[in-house]
Amino acid sequence: MSTEPAVPSFPTSLGTSTADEIRLLGQDLTADLMGKVGFGELAFWLVALRRPTPSETRVFEAVLVALADHGFTPTAIAARLTYLSAPDSLQGALAAGLLGGGSRFLGVTEDCGMFLHEALERHDLPTDEAGWDEFALEVVRGVQGKFIPGLGHPVHKVQDPRTPVLIGIAREEGLEGPHLKLFQAIGRVHEQVLGRKLPLNGAGVCGAALADLGLPVELLRGFALLARAAGLLGQIAEERRRPIGMDAYLTVDRNAVYVDPET
Amino acid sequence: MSTEPAVPSFPTSLGTSTADEIRLLGQDLTADLMGKVGFGELAFWLVALRRPTPSETRVFEAVLVALADHGFTPTAIAARLTYLSAPDSLQGALAAGLLGGGSRFLGVTEDCGMFLHEALERHDLPTDEAGWDEFALEVVRGVQGKFIPGLGHPVHKVQDPRTPVLIGIAREEGLEGPHLKLFQAIGRVHEQVLGRKLPLNGAGVCGAALADLGLPVELLRGFALLARAAGLLGQIAEERRRPIGMDAYLTVDRNAVYVDPET
Amino acid sequence: MSTEPAVPSFPTSLGTSTADEIRLLGQDLTADLMGKVGFGELAFWLVALRRPTPSETRVFEAVLVALADHGFTPTAIAARLTYLSAPDSLQGALAAGLLGGGSRFLGVTEDCGMFLHEALERHDLPTDEAGWDEFALEVVRGVQGKFIPGLGHPVHKVQDPRTPVLIGIAREEGLEGPHLKLFQAIGRVHEQVLGRKLPLNGAGVCGAALADLGLPVELLRGFALLARAAGLLGQIAEERRRPIGMDAYLTVDRNAVYVDPET
Amino acid sequence: MSTEPAVPSFPTSLGTSTADEIRLLGQDLTADLMGKVGFGELAFWLVALRRPTPSETRVFEAVLVALADHGFTPTAIAARLTYLSAPDSLQGALAAGLLGGGSRFLGVTEDCGMFLHEALERHDLPTDEAGWDEFALEVVRGVQGKFIPGLGHPVHKVQDPRTPVLIGIAREEGLEGPHLKLFQAIGRVHEQVLGRKLPLNGAGVCGAALADLGLPVELLRGFALLARAAGLLGQIAEERRRPIGMDAYLTVDRNAVYVDPET
Repeated sequence: MSTEPAVPSFPTSLGTSTADEIRLLGQDLTADLMGKVGFGELAFWLVALRRPTPSETRVFEAVLVALADHGFTPTAIAARLTYLSAPDSLQGALAAGLLGGGSRFLGVTEDCGMFLHEALERHDLPTDEAGWDEFALEVVRGVQGKFIPGLGHPVHKVQDPRTPVLIGIAREEGLEGPHLKLFQAIGRVHEQVLGRKLPLNGAGVCGAALADLGLPVELLRGFALLARAAGLLGQIAEERRRPIGMDAYLTVDRNAVYVDPET
Repeated sequence: MSTEPAVPSFPTSLGTSTADEIRLLGQDLTADLMGKVGFGELAFWLVALRRPTPSETRVFEAVLVALADHGFTPTAIAARLTYLSAPDSLQGALAAGLLGGGSRFLGVTEDCGMFLHEALERHDLPTDEAGWDEFALEVVRGVQGKFIPGLGHPVHKVQDPRTPVLIGIAREEGLEGPHLKLFQAIGRVHEQVLGRKLPLNGAGVCGAALADLGLPVELLRGFALLARAAGLLGQIAEERRRPIGMDAYLTVDRNAVYVDPET
Repeated sequence: MSTEPAVPSFPTSLGTSTADEIRLLGQDLTADLMGKVGFGELAFWLVALRRPTPSETRVFEAVLVALADHGFTPTAIAARLTYLSAPDSLQGALAAGLLGGGSRFLGVTEDCGMFLHEALERHDLPTDEAGWDEFALEVVRGVQGKFIPGLGHPVHKVQDPRTPVLIGIAREEGLEGPHLKLFQAIGRVHEQVLGRKLPLNGAGVCGAALADLGLPVELLRGFALLARAAGLLGQIAEERRRPIGMDAYLTVDRNAVYVDPET
Repeated sequence: MSTEPAVPSFPTSLGTSTADEIRLLGQDLTADLMGKVGFGELAFWLVALRRPTPSETRVFEAVLVALADHGFTPTAIAARLTYLSAPDSLQGALAAGLLGGGSRFLGVTEDCGMFLHEALERHDLPTDEAGWDEFALEVVRGVQGKFIPGLGHPVHKVQDPRTPVLIGIAREEGLEGPHLKLFQAIGRVHEQVLGRKLPLNGAGVCGAALADLGLPVELLRGFALLARAAGLLGQIAEERRRPIGMDAYLTVDRNAVYVDPET
């Protein structure tokens, strides 16, 4: 005789509800959260399972604001073209835009946070700037010519303006932790190894700051995607007001040149 | 001779950048926005092209908080199953979850806002509660037995706890406008026409509140999707910590019963 | 005491398997289907729950071939931009391309099939061409100036070359049914009502042909999406070989013009 | 003075059209392809840029048939749940299903093809079965305890019925090439290294067969996705006819158990 239950139970710490109450994260949604917790604060809480402090919220929201929109990126154009083709499905246009949030364009935040995190796990924390520089040199040498996530930017070739500002905000809030320190040290020393000076980019510093907030590094891409969801909503709203999708499509299509497959 | 330009220009009021500056919405991203503007505030601004007041931000974020997560919805389960199948692509799991944000489960916010908006466009604004009730009666009669978006809820059969709380917040902030007033009046009078009393549901009241903030009703679904993006991130984070996707899948698969296609 | 089962059963006529056999549609996958049934044939069978005849298969595959790829459409460009951004997730690029398969660009097939189907449900079948013309006149008049799906094409302004060819194939195979007949009659008579001659387009004739095969009209968009999945695979393969995504993106981004949000 | 053209040209060997002709792959779509080329044949051609022979088409379509549907997989359930939530967007449900086509459930085809391909690039082709076995032993030893893609199956623990059938079809058609030979040799020798006998699974043998057809191994996942698109269409059609999505959702939701986030 089987004593195994016919259907498993499904544990969760997120939303549950009864006829007269909705709970979320162990809180009463209407009494404890609505009107009392900001949206960024809740997003942090949903992943970290703890309410962030006001200082953490300020750094976290500064990161989301920094990542929300970068203008006509491939993902923004993809969302607009999808909206042009299927205006009846806003969720499809948003999803299409987020699907570009992979390794190349939106992945730097996660890759940089994870790269710093793994380096920190293998090493004792330095106690002064000279110690961080030595550690950073070791890290940069260790990649042996491979790409360091967070270093370099196609447009901001000398300095990415987001980098010093976000470090400044984290410092003001007492949240400049080991990831940001190692990242800055890499910025100071990499030229010695690589032979040229590259800026620390904004996506990378965002990853470092999120990792210093204690958020799981495997999910950092998720915060970049959340930020981008707001930006894509802005792009779709603009596509309704002042469309560019049709022109973008026609510019490609009218300049198509047939190439023999054999060549 | 053609004087037509070879390539069109692509107008935008969102993100643009030069080598040393990033602009967004006509602001300097690093000097004016990062650390100074909340994430919800920015999301509103990106769509409405104006910075919300603190009162508007509070109502707006209360809506996003209300809509972020409703536990094991079909969309949350779809996101978890997708993450189970393709853990290498967080963006795919998030997109899969958002794709359920259509007419049935997430669409009520938009449908309700739009329904109220269209009714308000056809009618002068009443000046007292009796006037609103009369107007609401006319609206309910006008649908002739068809479904009124925002009315009724499968779980909260008597009262949805979000409804009075969100109306209260809007009232506190001086933002209880015509959409919320008409929605409440429908709540008071529909029983006279429909013959039974239904609750005003939370998704509907969120749509009414967003419409009262002056946000474009055609895009209200977009805010529900943004809120849900945060909730889905929480679901995916929980799927990593305490997975249920495999059990959900096996529960269906092990209880599959083959049915002859002819029948 | 509850006698309700703890977990429902999940009926299906599609795939099931045991340790040593895989069944699909009531057939033994390895003994009855692999190597014996074509892919198009199986796709028809999966939806219609009956194996198509060779004639039906020929018409069905001619439709899929006609719809597979139309060059640099918005959906093809969206898939390529997504692949550029996230080359690690082929499924994301394919999904992004399919998400444009909505009302405007890929929806004509479904809309036309459904439009013809609904007209046919309200009317007895004519017995000669004069009868079809009379019926078609009534249908065209009935839309009262609204758009008739399947009529007109931005490029093929006089004749869409796919239309006569697909009708010819259906006729050869004895599968020119009422949907194709009504569609052709609309082609002959609409000028009398609309005051100008428009071509019957290829997406529309595909919808009519699929409806004549007895496929459910609510799912015709699905076949257009299946056909397009093959085309998008070709587009992604070409993006790997001879990329255009970066140029498409840069063409838009470099010609961006900032517009004050106030204007 | 700049002589750079204002807009780049966009090369393609796929679809192009003029007012009276549609070309695809250098062929006249209506004269050369419709009614003359099968859908599977065209899908192969779109990626490989050459028309497959009838033998190649038979093996290729046998693979697509084998991969089309495996019943209630996580991806099929995700598609059905998405359709339940957003029945207005068939493309969204299909896309949600495909997004699970990642590393774990649909990736084996690609991973296995690529694994065999890389091994073959490092080694001369053996000339007899003993040579293949020796080569395979070296390959299995080389992975040093890591997972070999294509080996093992959760349900078909002794033999996957698809494996011998697909090898048989390839052999009949004279298309049993080095990937299939190495895969079979791995099947014969791995027990010596791993200490237990595992079956060669169906997804793996499909990858080997596709690689033997000369298709690019980086795109093998794409063919699994194309096959699955047909299967998902069948799942969605069945969800319309005999829905299970609501029961699947309720089974999870009704068995939800709240867990304190602190634990």
